Amino acid sequence: MGEKDDIIRRGRFEAPQDREAAAFLSSVDQDRRMAAADIWVDKAHILMLWRQGLIADDHAKKLLDELDSIARDLEKLSSNGYEDIHLMIETELIQRLGEDIGGRIHTGRSRNDEVATCLRIVLRDEILELVGDLCELEQLLLDMSRRHTKTVMPAYTHLQRAQPTTLAHHLLAHCEALLRDAGRLVDCYRRVDVCPLGAAAVATTSLPIDPELTSTLLGFAGTFRNSMDAVSSRDFLVEALFCLSSVALSLSRMAEEIVLWSTSEFGFLSLSDEFSSTSSIMPQKRNPDVAELIRARASSVLGSLVSAMTICKSLPFSYNRDLQEATPHLWAGLDLVKAMVNVMRGIVSSAKVDEGALRRAAARGGLWATDLADLLVTLEGLPFRTAHSIVAEIAKDGLHGLDAQTLKRRVREAAERVAGRPIEIPTDELSRLLDLGYCVEARGIRGGPAPRSVEKAIEEVSAEVSEVLRWRTERIRAIDDARRKVATMQAEI
Amino acid sequence: MGEKDDIIRRGRFEAPQDREAAAFLSSVDQDRRMAAADIWVDKAHILMLWRQGLIADDHAKKLLDELDSIARDLEKLSSNGYEDIHLMIETELIQRLGEDIGGRIHTGRSRNDEVATCLRIVLRDEILELVGDLCELEQLLLDMSRRHTKTVMPAYTHLQRAQPTTLAHHLLAHCEALLRDAGRLVDCYRRVDVCPLGAAAVATTSLPIDPELTSTLLGFAGTFRNSMDAVSSRDFLVEALFCLSSVALSLSRMAEEIVLWSTSEFGFLSLSDEFSSTSSIMPQKRNPDVAELIRARASSVLGSLVSAMTICKSLPFSYNRDLQEATPHLWAGLDLVKAMVNVMRGIVSSAKVDEGALRRAAARGGLWATDLADLLVTLEGLPFRTAHSIVAEIAKDGLHGLDAQTLKRRVREAAERVAGRPIEIPTDELSRLLDLGYCVEARGIRGGPAPRSVEKAIEEVSAEVSEVLRWRTERIRAIDDARRKVATMQAEI
Amino acid sequence: MGEKDDIIRRGRFEAPQDREAAAFLSSVDQDRRMAAADIWVDKAHILMLWRQGLIADDHAKKLLDELDSIARDLEKLSSNGYEDIHLMIETELIQRLGEDIGGRIHTGRSRNDEVATCLRIVLRDEILELVGDLCELEQLLLDMSRRHTKTVMPAYTHLQRAQPTTLAHHLLAHCEALLRDAGRLVDCYRRVDVCPLGAAAVATTSLPIDPELTSTLLGFAGTFRNSMDAVSSRDFLVEALFCLSSVALSLSRMAEEIVLWSTSEFGFLSLSDEFSSTSSIMPQKRNPDVAELIRARASSVLGSLVSAMTICKSLPFSYNRDLQEATPHLWAGLDLVKAMVNVMRGIVSSAKVDEGALRRAAARGGLWATDLADLLVTLEGLPFRTAHSIVAEIAKDGLHGLDAQTLKRRVREAAERVAGRPIEIPTDELSRLLDLGYCVEARGIRGGPAPRSVEKAIEEVSAEVSEVLRWRTERIRAIDDARRKVATMQAEI
Amino acid sequence: MGEKDDIIRRGRFEAPQDREAAAFLSSVDQDRRMAAADIWVDKAHILMLWRQGLIADDHAKKLLDELDSIARDLEKLSSNGYEDIHLMIETELIQRLGEDIGGRIHTGRSRNDEVATCLRIVLRDEILELVGDLCELEQLLLDMSRRHTKTVMPAYTHLQRAQPTTLAHHLLAHCEALLRDAGRLVDCYRRVDVCPLGAAAVATTSLPIDPELTSTLLGFAGTFRNSMDAVSSRDFLVEALFCLSSVALSLSRMAEEIVLWSTSEFGFLSLSDEFSSTSSIMPQKRNPDVAELIRARASSVLGSLVSAMTICKSLPFSYNRDLQEATPHLWAGLDLVKAMVNVMRGIVSSAKVDEGALRRAAARGGLWATDLADLLVTLEGLPFRTAHSIVAEIAKDGLHGLDAQTLKRRVREAAERVAGRPIEIPTDELSRLLDLGYCVEARGIRGGPAPRSVEKAIEEVSAEVSEVLRWRTERIRAIDDARRKVATMQAEI
Repeated sequence: MGEKDDIIRRGRFEAPQDREAAAFLSSVDQDRRMAAADIWVDKAHILMLWRQGLIADDHAKKLLDELDSIARDLEKLSSNGYEDIHLMIETELIQRLGEDIGGRIHTGRSRNDEVATCLRIVLRDEILELVGDLCELEQLLLDMSRRHTKTVMPAYTHLQRAQPTTLAHHLLAHCEALLRDAGRLVDCYRRVDVCPLGAAAVATTSLPIDPELTSTLLGFAGTFRNSMDAVSSRDFLVEALFCLSSVALSLSRMAEEIVLWSTSEFGFLSLSDEFSSTSSIMPQKRNPDVAELIRARASSVLGSLVSAMTICKSLPFSYNRDLQEATPHLWAGLDLVKAMVNVMRGIVSSAKVDEGALRRAAARGGLWATDLADLLVTLEGLPFRTAHSIVAEIAKDGLHGLDAQTLKRRVREAAERVAGRPIEIPTDELSRLLDLGYCVEARGIRGGPAPRSVEKAIEEVSAEVSEVLRWRTERIRAIDDARRKVATMQAEI
Repeated sequence: MGEKDDIIRRGRFEAPQDREAAAFLSSVDQDRRMAAADIWVDKAHILMLWRQGLIADDHAKKLLDELDSIARDLEKLSSNGYEDIHLMIETELIQRLGEDIGGRIHTGRSRNDEVATCLRIVLRDEILELVGDLCELEQLLLDMSRRHTKTVMPAYTHLQRAQPTTLAHHLLAHCEALLRDAGRLVDCYRRVDVCPLGAAAVATTSLPIDPELTSTLLGFAGTFRNSMDAVSSRDFLVEALFCLSSVALSLSRMAEEIVLWSTSEFGFLSLSDEFSSTSSIMPQKRNPDVAELIRARASSVLGSLVSAMTICKSLPFSYNRDLQEATPHLWAGLDLVKAMVNVMRGIVSSAKVDEGALRRAAARGGLWATDLADLLVTLEGLPFRTAHSIVAEIAKDGLHGLDAQTLKRRVREAAERVAGRPIEIPTDELSRLLDLGYCVEARGIRGGPAPRSVEKAIEEVSAEVSEVLRWRTERIRAIDDARRKVATMQAEI
Repeated sequence: MGEKDDIIRRGRFEAPQDREAAAFLSSVDQDRRMAAADIWVDKAHILMLWRQGLIADDHAKKLLDELDSIARDLEKLSSNGYEDIHLMIETELIQRLGEDIGGRIHTGRSRNDEVATCLRIVLRDEILELVGDLCELEQLLLDMSRRHTKTVMPAYTHLQRAQPTTLAHHLLAHCEALLRDAGRLVDCYRRVDVCPLGAAAVATTSLPIDPELTSTLLGFAGTFRNSMDAVSSRDFLVEALFCLSSVALSLSRMAEEIVLWSTSEFGFLSLSDEFSSTSSIMPQKRNPDVAELIRARASSVLGSLVSAMTICKSLPFSYNRDLQEATPHLWAGLDLVKAMVNVMRGIVSSAKVDEGALRRAAARGGLWATDLADLLVTLEGLPFRTAHSIVAEIAKDGLHGLDAQTLKRRVREAAERVAGRPIEIPTDELSRLLDLGYCVEARGIRGGPAPRSVEKAIEEVSAEVSEVLRWRTERIRAIDDARRKVATMQAEI
Repeated sequence: MGEKDDIIRRGRFEAPQDREAAAFLSSVDQDRRMAAADIWVDKAHILMLWRQGLIADDHAKKLLDELDSIARDLEKLSSNGYEDIHLMIETELIQRLGEDIGGRIHTGRSRNDEVATCLRIVLRDEILELVGDLCELEQLLLDMSRRHTKTVMPAYTHLQRAQPTTLAHHLLAHCEALLRDAGRLVDCYRRVDVCPLGAAAVATTSLPIDPELTSTLLGFAGTFRNSMDAVSSRDFLVEALFCLSSVALSLSRMAEEIVLWSTSEFGFLSLSDEFSSTSSIMPQKRNPDVAELIRARASSVLGSLVSAMTICKSLPFSYNRDLQEATPHLWAGLDLVKAMVNVMRGIVSSAKVDEGALRRAAARGGLWATDLADLLVTLEGLPFRTAHSIVAEIAKDGLHGLDAQTLKRRVREAAERVAGRPIEIPTDELSRLLDLGYCVEARGIRGGPAPRSVEKAIEEVSAEVSEVLRWRTERIRAIDDARRKVATMQAEI
């Protein structure tokens, strides 16, 4: 772009922009992502101007046709020298149609409302895509859970084996977290789905525009209620970045477990070749690099959130150029999280679980200790605290590898020491206790690990996922409808 | 507390906890805030155990009565040496009633679910309080807006005067932001309002407990669907901190404007004595310290969010002690934001606006420039880009202090230079343009600054605030009802 | 404090400060930590005013004596109602001595320079204390390393066993990180050790004060070179928080290993009773809560850094009240990190290493694979890449439990497949390879795990620690000297 | 790159890497920046292997020559499908020379030490470049200061006019902050300037390599002392990002002032056309977008620091793939800060200061108030607190536009009211007070705004800048020398 072609600086300034400053200011490369949205916004705006009598039929027609042509050429157009995608497209239009026609498109709007509109349009699509991806991951985990309702494993607290549970129960914990993350994205969507077009620079315009019409043509649920807010606020963007961070944190916790579980020490999981790496010098290595990077990239998303929040802090109203700097953080966060979700799907679906290793781990370390205390409560009417102390006394010498007979003796002796009286637990009760399957089975309340509870949970989560997907389909349809309205109206001119 | 009294370590360990380690681990001082909630949880739990036949009538009765007594003594009890508030209360109970009775309270639960339940109970109240405070600030701003629908002032972009608007329109922009913040808190509340009690350590319990009942007695909307998730997840806490950060960012922007507006240079606002500071050595100073601290404390809230997110990152399931460290960040964030909201209310309600200064600022700097360009579009049918260039040409020599006659000449000359033909704008059109009130009046679409648009917006915002308050009242009632249920049931034993 | 006693507001304002605003503004409780420093600053300032003839002998004497008396009463003084510790002490002085004497102390200074001076004095001490603590931890790790130069264990990459190393070598990696952290604190100290007293509010004073003298009396290395910078800058505070974050990150990595190593799965480490926790319901648990909290608190330090940086961002010069909000983050960070270092010392010195478990882990998984590839390079002159491929081929079938004979055959076959020719490695070479001790011994370059290399490293690190301690001792002496100078000069009046 | 060409996966895995996973793992595009460094590292490594007899003369020669050839072709080589730049170059070498020669380069090293070495080499250069840029900005500010030692302006506290100072004094405050930032970079450089090559994967190698030689050939000040630390630690990177953040914060404060000073309200500064923007619809606007973006980008640097710190938190030793994710944050931070410094130079050097506006602002608002209080102290021997109260009493009615006579009367009356006796200040003293130049002149201690103090400060800062530049030149020379050594040694084979 030559200096003389700078359609907004020409006239106003004597000297061209400093080259370094221009490069510093330009967002055009990162704006590419909004190019298609910008053209849609342009077309909706022209149709509105035409309907309001602010632009003549033939001008409107030529502008719309040429925008279609630019849309087709988008890939080929050089962004070199432009401040942003909006100026690039407007300049291209002026160069192709001449200023007398091309120069009419910016009537009754400003880049401030234009950019905010494009941002929301793209973000809408991205949220819908991500919600879809999350639901697919959810369904994968649900399928896996269905296969593992009886795969006993240790539940950990403090990374110490705590109590017996099943792999299904463990996977469903992740499902719950991800489902809440999806719910946050849905909530955020409502705040994104508001059209700022017509706010112009900050205070709307004295021209008789019709923001309701453009909002409809762009598929928004509603239009702005305060024009200053419409151009100054990026809390919708910050909230979206928070929702992304929340997904990223959920995934980082899954990734951490994948790293742990695929160590020689845990040995619960074996990653597929497709999702493993090896070393440049240690040929024996099978490394979980992909999971490590999911874990690490959660930090990058978090950093983007911090940047965006810090950018917005203490900014006086209304639009300040600072806001431009928040946008690439949104794109970065979206790209990272979408890739993280999809790669996680690949890892999970291709990894091999070692059920034997899970069961062996659950069988070591006396995970029945709480149940033994509970037994002392129910059979002997002991206060839980006393029962806890008796089992703690037994635990001092280790709980590993005890059979029912030995355990019976130990209980008796410990009760003698702690409670001052020998307690006899029937051997068959203790045998049942040492059977992990029974321990799991006994935890059958809502939310517990017993297969019947888990199956019910799977059903409920599955129904909620379907509901989210239904919502998503409706939103996609509404957006598609708006696109069609633009085409129909364009054909009517 | 003596070592021998350590009801959970005794028996298990030979050596007492290292003193420094114990201090490092203890959260009891910060837990004080949850003491009342903990007693409520204790009572609900006992009532449930009693109803399920897990505890005898007389034991239940004594426990409940003693908890009431502890509740009354709470202030006086020393927390010295306790790991947390839950152990402190349980130990107190055991010391008062003996282990045979007091030792029964922890039957069928764990600190993991207990602490998560208390956290959610307190957070529920805090959110409701904050939402109420936000609504009051909102109403204050709305009242102020009603008085200033015709107070003309400059709208700024890039902190440069941009176009004429009114103070009401400006204040409403803040109203919109704060209203969305309240909406986020409402959304967050739904995810907080789930009862984790019964999840026990991680995998529920084999005892026949009834989590639905405790949930009801604690006024929750529902109970957990996965016990591992119930004790491992703090995304509700992180989300709450995000919502707080969002409020804090909105307030930081208002605070920044207050600092700017009360400078000698802007002179728009004069803080009341009650909300001003002076200098220890410069007696002439009237400093906006309170607004500066609101601005600064937004950073502290943000830091708390970062801490909480970083704590949760990469934590494997289920409960890890790390989660304890997230809680004080939540309390800190809540206290900061509530104080910020309330102090902001004080500042706003007591500050004096200098309407003359606002109007004078709006009258300088050619804020009618966009309107002139629009006039060239509507009267002469010029493309906006050409009109923009003509006005830019005029702007080069400054737009300040022009009368209609001079402006008329300048337009003619500039049009000649830029568009190659002289353009004559009727003097009365130009006179109207130079009348700021008219410029504002002309921006009458939804969301614009014209008094009629602003009045409509005030009405709508006001209605939404009322709706939020209605929701809040209902929640408070539901919580109160649950408290009454506990009392009724206690009386029935 | 009554309103009429407000020594800086009286006269200036008609109305007292709003109660909520006053509470919001007050830093007096968090300032307590600076009380002793403030009195030192007061005394140095009075001595300077006296030496410069700005204050009479008897006034100086009375002020100094009364400050000594206030110093003794400090604990008992109520801070209620004061904005900060500086006003509290000045007001106390005025109340005790009357305004005619007490009212002279603030001559030629401002709270802006006073608070910055106090901050630096306290921070100096804190850095020296922390550096001392770090050196003690360092020496503990060095001692432990000396005992474990031959304790073979696996080195991990990607948390997968990679190559054999020793515990000493592993511990020394942490020593290096912590030593750099100490170095950063030393560097930071130099930037802290500059006296801002005399900068007054922002532009010094027209009174003939002598900042060099106060700087000397306060033990600073030098005085400010720009008074505006002296009151506006908190980069020294932010840098200190960064240094703290860096220590915290180093400790979080150690803590993570402690958590991992004390799992049943790794089993490398057994925490002492003194540093273990158990569960409120699972009596068998021995949880590493202390290490988990070290890990979590690193996040809190990081959050404090973020807060402080965000506070400083975009603040125009010179002093703004925002800066006050940075101080508590510094104190919080210091307290957290000092406790983390000290608790870490306790954990490390009391934990029991299971050398057998370490060796067994090193013996599994073919950690000699790289050495085998290296052997193919040195004995057969193969390119490393080809050698790597041959070993990778062998690794496919697992490297576990091979004896020299079998390995010999496998090498021959794999070489045939990969390089097209059978390769025979002498059995004794392979036997040596399978001996882990030999593998470690062979890595004897500087920085490697061989005992001779490790012993040399221990010596070097030990010498550097001593150097840091020497520097620390000198700084402490310089500060003590300054304190004595104040006493001497006070006695001379 | 075809799958069969994957030189480290072939043999080890049956299945190729998942395409999405490979894209997720690849850092090759961001590594481009390290390509030249990697080739330098390759050459130094080969020369060492050759010197140690680990590689034959002709192999060494061919490898070195081919690396030179690859260096020339670097731009043209497609990175498509490679995991990182190191594998890309090694693969290219193998394809060009055959595996029998090309396959020898990775002997005795690993990507873990290779990548850490490249990172440090590039970072060294970048720090030196940035330090140079900072010194240039420093010199520009010093030059400007020299011209403005008598340009009186208000010093602000709390953004309220506080006391008279000069533009030079104000600019020097920024100089001090930036000089400390440069000092931090110098300190950081020492910790970067350590060569990790030879650490191999984690535990060095059993081959007889010579890390001292490679360190010398790469111009490092020393070599690693613990190989595990060498590959696991990124604290040097995190520290560098902190130093960048510190520079960014300093610049954000300057940028904030530029935004404020170029408002209509302040009017102190007029940006040049080259560094101004205008609006797409408001032709009168002259916006400081460049300064706004400097301000905003400080937040992005801060976010990168947060990401890098969060990535490192809780990582167990030694190398984890997470570390890869920290690198792009370093590059991003470096690029942002270098651009910010350079654009700031452009803004500052081209902006026009309105000295009249500065002086007028200083003349309003009674900036002499503190001096009047000081006068009451020196002339009348009043305690400062009493003097402060008298002036506060006067300030209530405003200090604006008073002449010496009126002021004299006001002092008398206020003293009567406050101190109970009329005080008469000689008119000539008051006249002098009202002369701003005199007020500035009177603040002549070190660090004060008086021209003589400022000139001395300029000299000192200038000398320190020269010292930094000298240090920089020496480092550059050392690096160049090392490059020459490689060439000389290559020629000797």
